[in-house]
Amino acid sequence: MIDNPFYSHEFHGDYDLFSVGALDLEDGGTIPDCRLAVATFGQLNAAKDNAILITTWYSGTHQTWRDIYIGPDHALNPERYFIVCVNQIGSGLSTSPHNADGVNAGIAMSKFPHVRIGDNVVAQERLLREHFGIDRLALVLGGSMGAQQTYEWAVRFPDKVLRAAPIAGTAQNTPGDFLIAQIMREATQSDPGWAGGEYRSNADVFNGLVREAHIWGVVGLSTEFWKQEVWRVLEFETKDAFLTGFLEPYFTAMDPNDLLTQSWAWQRGDVARHTGGDLAAALERITAKTFVMPIDEDQLFPVRDCRAEQELIKNSELRVVEDVLGHLALFGIAPTYMPQIDRHLGDLLATDA
Amino acid sequence: MIDNPFYSHEFHGDYDLFSVGALDLEDGGTIPDCRLAVATFGQLNAAKDNAILITTWYSGTHQTWRDIYIGPDHALNPERYFIVCVNQIGSGLSTSPHNADGVNAGIAMSKFPHVRIGDNVVAQERLLREHFGIDRLALVLGGSMGAQQTYEWAVRFPDKVLRAAPIAGTAQNTPGDFLIAQIMREATQSDPGWAGGEYRSNADVFNGLVREAHIWGVVGLSTEFWKQEVWRVLEFETKDAFLTGFLEPYFTAMDPNDLLTQSWAWQRGDVARHTGGDLAAALERITAKTFVMPIDEDQLFPVRDCRAEQELIKNSELRVVEDVLGHLALFGIAPTYMPQIDRHLGDLLATDA
Repeated sequence: MIDNPFYSHEFHGDYDLFSVGALDLEDGGTIPDCRLAVATFGQLNAAKDNAILITTWYSGTHQTWRDIYIGPDHALNPERYFIVCVNQIGSGLSTSPHNADGVNAGIAMSKFPHVRIGDNVVAQERLLREHFGIDRLALVLGGSMGAQQTYEWAVRFPDKVLRAAPIAGTAQNTPGDFLIAQIMREATQSDPGWAGGEYRSNADVFNGLVREAHIWGVVGLSTEFWKQEVWRVLEFETKDAFLTGFLEPYFTAMDPNDLLTQSWAWQRGDVARHTGGDLAAALERITAKTFVMPIDEDQLFPVRDCRAEQELIKNSELRVVEDVLGHLALFGIAPTYMPQIDRHLGDLLATDA
Repeated sequence: MIDNPFYSHEFHGDYDLFSVGALDLEDGGTIPDCRLAVATFGQLNAAKDNAILITTWYSGTHQTWRDIYIGPDHALNPERYFIVCVNQIGSGLSTSPHNADGVNAGIAMSKFPHVRIGDNVVAQERLLREHFGIDRLALVLGGSMGAQQTYEWAVRFPDKVLRAAPIAGTAQNTPGDFLIAQIMREATQSDPGWAGGEYRSNADVFNGLVREAHIWGVVGLSTEFWKQEVWRVLEFETKDAFLTGFLEPYFTAMDPNDLLTQSWAWQRGDVARHTGGDLAAALERITAKTFVMPIDEDQLFPVRDCRAEQELIKNSELRVVEDVLGHLALFGIAPTYMPQIDRHLGDLLATDA
């Protein structure tokens, strides 16, 4: 158990911890007491048919969703919907390597088991059913790893998902994307301070996390982002100031083992696990009205990869989001980003399902 | 002086070492005895108007040019042209950190000075004039850092360059590309074995070079390369076998300081140094018939960056090369690559100039 102030209410505001009990994992092992950090917005109606589930991305929490995506002026309107944002296992807020204590002490740090996208979705389904009595979701959505979870939901529990919006992510991770996550992992794990996962403080892995931040600067953004100096909209005066004032502090505040838990799952996201490797057969199971929403400049999940999957989903549309930030457009920095998201999600929520 | 068998005639075949004497460098410092490793093909004619200069890319030498690009069946035909391929300073064959000895012993290893693209071109011009008596070049070309040198030639010595073919590279390095080179540098320099550049053997930096190789696997190739399993054309059976059997041995055979010398120059390639930062004014100096030849899937030097420069060159054409390998298409692995190169270079050589 490491005390990391980044993962606190002071930093992340309100959220609740719910236990879903012991979680047996797809790759073996068990989380003895799996606790999920959950932020909710709005009220569940009597019919329990206005629930929206948001899943989180690598390094992300409910925070960006709360601050950027959710509000009375957005499609994700808490005056109309009951919005449940579940931080993934390993997010640092839910059960994670750095915070495993008590009955979870045996899986702390380097002893944390491998967790898959599917494990997260199993835990989320249990949470929604047991704690909220929710059996069907008006919409499941998420970006990046959240898109992976969204696809997993739609394939695994087709009857429970009326609409799905995977943003900037794929149902089956590509080998190129696996390698992208791998070079990030290697940046962190090559830091002698990582010590095989048994560091005393995330500060011991500062250099490795800085290198990971720089890799995100390359693959998470776009060459056009740098060329157009888009970082100026965030009021940085130089490229280096943006690196040292934004990307580096973002990652160095986090826990390396938590990030590694997430990226291990990211690398292996694949709904075709349910169909013996047949991606088309897996996507055919989806009954949800699905808007596949890649970002045009995304290097991690290029439009063509997302389109290839969308074409295998019967009740789907391709809705490309234009943003020069590339993958990290998900942060909602460009003023043109949220209007697109709201239009697409608004259209999706307006469809009969 | 480190004895690295990769940089040898056994491995690289025939080449000659020519001294261009002391080379004063743009960023300060001097190479006391600058030796350039040069491979030539064909014969210089009596009029001395059939000379072609090839410059080399990061990590590359004359080897790939000799084996893939040059031959009687290619546009770079040694039966017609006198082709001079000059390995860049820091290439490991020309004067480089790892081989600096004798009068160069004072600049060995970590003491090697910063060398720019412009320094290379100054040395090459001196070589051609003093050793070969060549005053004008029928064509200057190169890929990647070789494209940077090509642009430098065309801007710096416009009267000496009749035709220019910068392939997969820019005249002014973009900030995004600077960062790409930076994450490669950090992969190597973060290896404790690098020891600030004072390692005993490149094997001491094996892990860092492996990490660099993996970064090349991400940014040097393309997600489509991995998705389509194009590595199968090289007769590897798995993705990992390609990594461990091709990319890793390619980089781990090399000298880290030599690579770092090259990437420092790569990061700062910019013809606008000659015009107070005005790129348009610099490119306006070019009188050569110029074919700008980006590769469609290149992540380092995207087509749009190359096109933006091409539009500033008066006597130019944009010739896009299609290759799913992305930047590393330069190796000429895809059977569809060389026919495109030969067609474009053939067209260019056929123009009056």
